[in-house]
Amino acid sequence: MTKPLAPTNPATRMAATELQALAASALEAVGIPGEDARAAAEILVFADLVGIHTHGLARLSPYIARLRDGAFNPRPAIRIRRRGATGIVDGDNGLGPVVGRAGIRLAIEIARDNGVGYVGCRDSQHFGALAPYIMTAAESGMVVVLGTTAFPTMAPWGGREVKLGNNPLGIGAPRPGRFPFIFDIALSIVARGKIRQAHERGEAIPPGWALDREGEPTTDPLEALKGFVLPVGGHKGYGLALLVDILAATLIGGIASHGVRSLFQQKDKPQKVGHFFIAIDPEHTIGKEAFDAGLAELEAAMRSTAPLDPSRPVILPGDIEGALYAERMRDGIPLDPQLLDQIERLARGERVAETAAF
Amino acid sequence: MTKPLAPTNPATRMAATELQALAASALEAVGIPGEDARAAAEILVFADLVGIHTHGLARLSPYIARLRDGAFNPRPAIRIRRRGATGIVDGDNGLGPVVGRAGIRLAIEIARDNGVGYVGCRDSQHFGALAPYIMTAAESGMVVVLGTTAFPTMAPWGGREVKLGNNPLGIGAPRPGRFPFIFDIALSIVARGKIRQAHERGEAIPPGWALDREGEPTTDPLEALKGFVLPVGGHKGYGLALLVDILAATLIGGIASHGVRSLFQQKDKPQKVGHFFIAIDPEHTIGKEAFDAGLAELEAAMRSTAPLDPSRPVILPGDIEGALYAERMRDGIPLDPQLLDQIERLARGERVAETAAF
Repeated sequence: MTKPLAPTNPATRMAATELQALAASALEAVGIPGEDARAAAEILVFADLVGIHTHGLARLSPYIARLRDGAFNPRPAIRIRRRGATGIVDGDNGLGPVVGRAGIRLAIEIARDNGVGYVGCRDSQHFGALAPYIMTAAESGMVVVLGTTAFPTMAPWGGREVKLGNNPLGIGAPRPGRFPFIFDIALSIVARGKIRQAHERGEAIPPGWALDREGEPTTDPLEALKGFVLPVGGHKGYGLALLVDILAATLIGGIASHGVRSLFQQKDKPQKVGHFFIAIDPEHTIGKEAFDAGLAELEAAMRSTAPLDPSRPVILPGDIEGALYAERMRDGIPLDPQLLDQIERLARGERVAETAAF
Repeated sequence: MTKPLAPTNPATRMAATELQALAASALEAVGIPGEDARAAAEILVFADLVGIHTHGLARLSPYIARLRDGAFNPRPAIRIRRRGATGIVDGDNGLGPVVGRAGIRLAIEIARDNGVGYVGCRDSQHFGALAPYIMTAAESGMVVVLGTTAFPTMAPWGGREVKLGNNPLGIGAPRPGRFPFIFDIALSIVARGKIRQAHERGEAIPPGWALDREGEPTTDPLEALKGFVLPVGGHKGYGLALLVDILAATLIGGIASHGVRSLFQQKDKPQKVGHFFIAIDPEHTIGKEAFDAGLAELEAAMRSTAPLDPSRPVILPGDIEGALYAERMRDGIPLDPQLLDQIERLARGERVAETAAF
């Protein structure tokens, strides 16, 4: 359901496989081993394929800058501890998508054996969107509930200091022969990226999105960026962000979001992000076919709802992503020419100016 | 964080144990076996102890009416199927708290063995608040993520027909020697009960709470009650409600919320509610002591936040409930004399007029 952030100049399209190869080269150029580089490249490009450009290749330059600075560890000794149906992945400050891939793979493996697997990853970094991990789980026939900590941008409800990430939370489910059900939200009313966009366009933001540094409501995007974004549903978003903190950090000995660092600030230190994955194998509960039928029924019930606007039928989470995925696998991914140029230079091992924070 | 609904006339206080005995007698009077009656009574009274009066003893009269009518099965043959670290509880249309208790117990048992346990309950009914199940898990040292389907009161985002419950979702965590961390929310912006209260008081409701039958925004509580409540955060609440549907119904062969019946309508049929519990044992991840220390640190970070209103420090989910619990365990539970009279009559096996829907 994430609204795609359209590239500012969508003239250039390139095949996903080509972009993956470029991104992998760029990561290898700063010391990431080949297999890890390819995995991370796939995860970033997947976000662009489904329209989540804020979490796709635009993240490559900051990832690489942090790798060059030594804040991220290009060759982490990732340690995996499995006990019963739980697992802890110690990321050793490796690249987020590399640690995240280890986490989702372990959760799938455990769920295959036990029906359910709970895995937490600690000492990781920004790992991109949730969607690529959902895709991996869906390809293995798994339902997955997942989330990640994020650096603090929200105040606890009733507070006026940033102390909490907008900790994305989601669920995915496989659909045979079709793009999976994908639900992936941040727990702030809006992402800071939207406020930044408003600032760049010189537009005001609606009341209710953010407070300024003093905790006063503001419609000025610059004051909002200096202040903090509000949790979705007030105390409800606050509690859900704590839910993610407990699952992605507290339960596995990681650092909750109040201690997570931004990808774009304190650049010389690892971010200490945490992720969690709860994979569930329908084969262990009611069997794959019965699950597929049940999900199709749930989907049909939603789609049969009379829409508020007759021209806009009710959609399901993942519909927008699935449509973009099909179109972009066929026609290539539209990318801002400046971003494409940046990626090509990174792939040649050149230094580039970092994409601005968003 | 649930706002307590204060009884209209709080003059009468009674000890929790006395109320439990009355409620158990009332349930036994309509054929519920003693142990089940006591368990259900404890679950209802716990909601009153923590201030969630909408989900406490006020539910006794509709439960009993449905039992008398034969819609609920007083002596269900609850079937439990455990496979690996997953479980399905088939409630056989038994009383919600009886089925829910079987579910949380099974999840705890599985998590004790495997570190994590995922259990879904199907063919159940309204099972009260989430808080008592969280308390049971916390007493066993378990973190629990849990939820339940509810009868449809929301439209899928962009739709104008009720097709989705406001499916409560929550998390709980034990705190040694203290009231647990309890987070329990419905996925609508507000509960229908608040709109009903506004109607009874002749007050308008704020814009954004609900739409009328035609899908138009309304501040008239009666029109809102005929229409539908809006999901928290728009498409975010819609997706979270589907998350609960998948975990509490689709994955275990139950009926998702679009097919769930109200406790107060279609009174001759079972409700077909589903619940889910994911219990996680910190002993299997980082050990109890390390988990307790981590949760205490997270809590301290939140409480140290400068508040917007200096007289109102930042609180954590469960603070309000914990304070009420302590006070009411000491001084008794304040109950509306009419409700108390109703419960006493039910305990004597008398027929009473049902508490109105809320």
